[in-house]
This record gives sequence, structure tokens and C-alpha cells, in this order.
Amino acid sequence: MAFLNDHYLKLKAGYLFPEIARRVRVFSEENPEAARRLIRCGIGDVTEPLPPAVVKALHQAVDEMASAETFRGYGPEQGYDFLRHAIAQNDYRDKGLPIEDDEIFVSDGSKCDCGNILDILGHQNRLGITDPVYPVYVDTNVMAGHTGEGDERGAFEGITYLQCDAGNGFVPEVPQEPLDVIYLCFPNNPTGATASREQLAAWVAYALRHGSLILFDAAYEAYISDPAVPHSIYEIPGARECAIEFRSFSKNGGFTGTRCAFTVVPKTVLARTSGGESRPLHPLWNRRMATKFNGVSYIVQRAAQALYSPEGKAQVAALIHHYMGNARLLREAALSLGWPVFGGVNAPYIWVGTPGGISSWSLFERMLREANVVITPGSGFGSNGEGYFRISAFNSRANVEEVARRMRAVAW
Amino acid sequence: MAFLNDHYLKLKAGYLFPEIARRVRVFSEENPEAARRLIRCGIGDVTEPLPPAVVKALHQAVDEMASAETFRGYGPEQGYDFLRHAIAQNDYRDKGLPIEDDEIFVSDGSKCDCGNILDILGHQNRLGITDPVYPVYVDTNVMAGHTGEGDERGAFEGITYLQCDAGNGFVPEVPQEPLDVIYLCFPNNPTGATASREQLAAWVAYALRHGSLILFDAAYEAYISDPAVPHSIYEIPGARECAIEFRSFSKNGGFTGTRCAFTVVPKTVLARTSGGESRPLHPLWNRRMATKFNGVSYIVQRAAQALYSPEGKAQVAALIHHYMGNARLLREAALSLGWPVFGGVNAPYIWVGTPGGISSWSLFERMLREANVVITPGSGFGSNGEGYFRISAFNSRANVEEVARRMRAVAW
Repeated sequence: MAFLNDHYLKLKAGYLFPEIARRVRVFSEENPEAARRLIRCGIGDVTEPLPPAVVKALHQAVDEMASAETFRGYGPEQGYDFLRHAIAQNDYRDKGLPIEDDEIFVSDGSKCDCGNILDILGHQNRLGITDPVYPVYVDTNVMAGHTGEGDERGAFEGITYLQCDAGNGFVPEVPQEPLDVIYLCFPNNPTGATASREQLAAWVAYALRHGSLILFDAAYEAYISDPAVPHSIYEIPGARECAIEFRSFSKNGGFTGTRCAFTVVPKTVLARTSGGESRPLHPLWNRRMATKFNGVSYIVQRAAQALYSPEGKAQVAALIHHYMGNARLLREAALSLGWPVFGGVNAPYIWVGTPGGISSWSLFERMLREANVVITPGSGFGSNGEGYFRISAFNSRANVEEVARRMRAVAW
Repeated sequence: MAFLNDHYLKLKAGYLFPEIARRVRVFSEENPEAARRLIRCGIGDVTEPLPPAVVKALHQAVDEMASAETFRGYGPEQGYDFLRHAIAQNDYRDKGLPIEDDEIFVSDGSKCDCGNILDILGHQNRLGITDPVYPVYVDTNVMAGHTGEGDERGAFEGITYLQCDAGNGFVPEVPQEPLDVIYLCFPNNPTGATASREQLAAWVAYALRHGSLILFDAAYEAYISDPAVPHSIYEIPGARECAIEFRSFSKNGGFTGTRCAFTVVPKTVLARTSGGESRPLHPLWNRRMATKFNGVSYIVQRAAQALYSPEGKAQVAALIHHYMGNARLLREAALSLGWPVFGGVNAPYIWVGTPGGISSWSLFERMLREANVVITPGSGFGSNGEGYFRISAFNSRANVEEVARRMRAVAW
């Protein structure tokens, strides 16, 4: 009989968001009345329609696909040149960061890329992952067999957990021990924390000292308003030698249902064979994409390109402005209740301490049942998330105002 | 220093199609005049525009994304219910095959699925792969570390190659030895061969006897016109216990640049843990998709759904009719030259023996230089493909007529 991948059996329950969806479904079936007034601030999913520049580009691309003269079949697996160029130029070179067009790999999502990057890495790497953390980093390593079993708190043997808490502002310190692969996400999902230039420089220095690889998730960079906060790891000298960066159009262009993202793999990032030889990772990722991927839908790549037009940029700025206005209202509501509040300033997530030391899932249930608001329990992101919850600013203004009202109305 | 995945270094040169693209580019740069009359029958890429029903559905879905009331963010990672239902109903249940909606997993491509399926399988499996073969099956196993080194003929240690040749009509016989995971592709890419009900029944019986898993690639099923040839492995009793099926909208709906496919994982397919316990694969694949994928673009899923409307079905039938008319012309041209010809009857590929025993790559170069036609060298698909080439029927009628003329005009 064929063998399955045993490592999958180490994973507990569901992935966090399906588990939330399940609880909400059960509640809604039992309380159809309350279900109708439910407001979802759980999963970090955008709510505003696609920007007009994107809609226009989509319609145009669809029309191209309707005519033999302009029809597009298979595209380059790494993404069309027009999009790789727009990204490298606008997001990097225009900001003084020397990223070449062919260092950009267009994909259908950052979640996919964060998982798939493990394809090109060895099994021997010592992993550093923050706690709390976006669960995909952990789960994909468990599935790939890079960990031992999980304990009752959800921590897996073989991962070095980089502690994030109120004490360090949810930015992990550089560890004493050498680690080979480190996941960093700033602005952070779930805590909304940002890392300063000095903090990122310390990580790059650490990586260069130990030959570590930093996997830098910058999916939320568009939400940074403070000019002192870096948008890209490549703003730190030396990062081109030690970091891969993940970015997405999900949260700036509202592409969560449209699907487009990209990964930056500088040709100067090296890793070693088990024999100790240094090799660049760029050709491996290129091969991975050519062999296991067939490129993003042409019409979607044209849509992503439109985000870099003058109109597209203005419309993205308006979307960010809208969501960050929501974040301010949610922050104020939590602060008015006297709760400890983090994030929500350069990030669309507000990370809030639960009142009276109740557990994250208890808070989730109270918010669901008493306020009919879905939030994300902090403990779902790791044991350091216990006692916190994440509330997402992705919503309509009317909904956010209502959520703020309901939060204040519950008899905490 | 971080470790890379050594197994990637076992792969030779490029993936076949990038290598063809490279040679064509070099030729075109050296011969700009000839490059202008180049006709590409190499990669199996469709040329006709998207069906009108699909274009209409795309425009409608784009408009939905332009309005807050109908906007869609994250969808189910496994695909929207509307599409899973349309697939299971039309492709399976209407044909008497009991596949449930939630056994359908919508993805962005069969190439991706064929590679990603390895995520949920163990490293201990004994692999059976045909020769010649679609290179992705081999390469993804090499990359996953399931093989040893490759030899000078491109064969990898640890793979049992199932020989396909003119003697067995390019349908492999069931082997004597037990294998755990077997890749079968019918209608076949590259040979255009189809397997009869009896031949597939022998494979299912073999799989049930040994507890093997059949990975059945049916990406070209729409091209079957002979009513005796099975379209799905599930037409064979017992296949629900031993087979996963891959299908695609690339070659029926012309989605090579639009990107949508699906995989069927029946809940009744089991595999074993390393401890010997039997478990269904369905929850593992579900977990894989939830953790490492974020669903296909909403607008693309609506486009795929439109292929199942009455208009969509009629338009797909017209596309198939067009390409199969091309196949007939190409078959006739090769036959008129006295060359051994296979496929092209229930498949869009014609598999042709090279004249005078010249090598596949020599034939490729002669076709490129003397006829300015790009074909695919058979040896690129495995050592049994040496002495053959594949010519694709995906083209305009005018181009195919011209290719047939040029093939006849060369002084072979």
C-alpha cells in the first residue's frame, strides 16, 4: 500500500481560520437571528471593491482573450515581463533598492509562496519562528517534516520560537544561538507591530554573521505611514545577501479573491549543499516555478500591473486610508475600555489584551455571542498570543462604527 | 549557512520546454527573416480565443468585483461550491460516476497538482512512471528527493520505468513487481495513445491487489471521440479505492493562460502511515490546500463554471472539433511521407517516428531550420521517445495547412 506523509498527522485540529469558520457556522445555525447581525473582523479579508483602474484593466484583458489576434496561452511561469518590471521598478528601484526584474517571481499568493519556498530548502535547517506567528510558517514546516511532535500548547519540537510580547513590543530579539532560516513578518500579522530600521539591521547583521536566510513577509507594507519604518528588508544594507521577501497584492489592491503576489529572490542569496558548497537559491526557485507552476492568469497579471498606474496608485492610497481610518476607530474603542492595545498604526490589525485575564477563545466566544462580532483569538497564533485577540480593520466604515459601539456596550 | 535542497542539483539542463524556447530564441536571433515565418507546434498550447460564454462570465464576474455588495474576497481554498458542484455533476454524476462535490479540489493547474500531490505522500513509495512521459512527473519526484542520481540517458535511480513503445501501442503493461505509486496519463501526453477499458481495468486490478495509488492524468479527455475509450479512471469499478484523477480546463476551454484545473480525491482512497495504519488521503489533501493555497481567482472560477452551461458545452465542442480537424491534417501529412504515425485520433498530439532513424533533436533542428516549424523532440520525454517527435494540433487551420505543406516540401 502507498505511504502517506506521516508529518501531516502531527498537525492539530484545523488551520486556525477554518476552525473559526466552523465555530461561527455552529453559532449561526443555533442563533439565526443573531447571525443576521454578525460582523466579521476575524480573518484579514478586504471588503472594498477592486479599484476602478483594476476593473478597467481586467475588462480590457478579458477582451484580449476573446480575440485570436490578442489571445494569450501559457505565459512565463515566473510572470510576464510587464509585471515583473513594474514591480521591480516601482516597489524597489524607484526607492533606491537595486532589485532586477528577473529577481521578481509573480505568484498566486503569499501563503502559497511562504509554503512553497520550503521546496528549495534542505531538511537540516535550524528554524526560527516568532511566537505569536502567522500559522502557515509553522504548519508548512510541520508538513514538510522539519519538526518533531507538537506539545499541548501547540509548540513543535525542532523549532526555535522567538518570543514576542508586550515587553519587546512584539519584535523578537536576535537570539544567542545560530539559526539557519528565520521568518520575520513586518508589519506583523497578527500583532500589527513594525520593526525599526535598527531592529531589522540587527537581524540582517545576525544573518550575515551566521549565514542565515531571512524569509521576510512584507504583505502589509502598504499600511506603513511612519516614514522611519522600512517597507522592505532590502532597505537594510546586506539584505540582498541573506533575505527573500514576500509581497502580495491582497491587502493593498484588495486582491484576496483575485489572487496575485510575488516573491523577491536576489541572485546574491546563497545557501549550501549538504556537502558544504555555496550555491545561489535563485536558479532553484526559478526551476521550482518552471516545473511546479504555470504562471498567474494573464488577466490577473494585467490587473496587478494597473495598480502601478498613476490612477491605480491613487486608488490604492484611498483604500489604505479607508482601512486605516477603521483601525483608528477600533483602537480608540479598545483604549476606551482600558484594554492594552498594540498595532493598528502602521498595520491593519489591532492586537488587544483580553479584559480580566480571560482566555483568547473565551473572549472570542463572548464577542461572538454578546456582540455578534467575529475576532481572531490570539492563542491561535501561538502560546504567546494567549490573553490577546486580533481585530481586523478590513471592513466598511459603517460596520466598524457598529463594532466599536457593540464592544463598548458589552458588560465586560 | 542555510541548507538548500540538494535534490534540485540532480536535474539536468532545463525543463524540456524552456530548452526548446532557448533554441528557438537563438535560431530567431540568427535568422530574423525565417523567424517571421516560424510556426510553433511544440508546446501544447491552445491558440483559439476563449469561448464567448467564458468571456461573458468573466466580464460579469469582474463587474461583481467592482461593487461592494457583490465583491468577493478570500474564497474557499478548495474551490467555490458552485464550481465543485458543476464539475462533479457534469463530468461525473451525469455519467454515472459517483463523485461527490467535496471530492473535487479546484486549482490553478494540473501541472501544479501533479507536483503538489507529492506533498501528502511518503518518501518510501516505489514509483512507476512511463517512458516516454510528461516530464513533470519525473522532475517533481527528483526535486522531492524520491530518486537517486540520473544517468546519461536521463533515467533516475529509484524510478521503475514502464516501457511504452510501438509494440504495446504506447500503453504500458502491468508490471510483475509491486509498485506503490503509478502515474498514468490517457489520452497520453506526449504520444496521443489512449488506454482501452480492459487496459485500465488491468491497472485498477493491479492497484487493488498491491494497494497501489494510481495518479491518473486525464487533462486531454475532451479529445476522446471513440465511445469505447474511457474518459475517467472512475469508469473502472474499484478505481474509487485506488485512484486520484487530474483534470484541467486548459485544453478543453482554452484556459492555458487563464489557469484553472481540478483534482478528484475520492474519500475512499487510502494510504498507510509508516507504522502501517490505513488512512484516507482526502483529509490530507484538504489540509494541504487549506494551508498552502488560497483558492483560484473568483473571476476565473466563474469562467470555468461557464464551460458547463449549454452554450459553453457547445463552444467547447466546436474548439475540440477545430483542433481535431488540425490533427487529421497533420496525421495525413506525416503518413503521406511514409513515417510511422501514432496518436492524433483521440488526442491533440501526433507522435511520429523520425525518418531515416535520425535523432529526435536532429529532427527538431531540421524542422526548425528547413521548415521553420517548432516541434517537440520525443527524446525530451524519455529515452523511449528517441527516434520520435511530437507535433501539436493546437493552432489555427491556416497554420496547420502551412505546416503540412512545409513538411511535405522538405527534402527528407
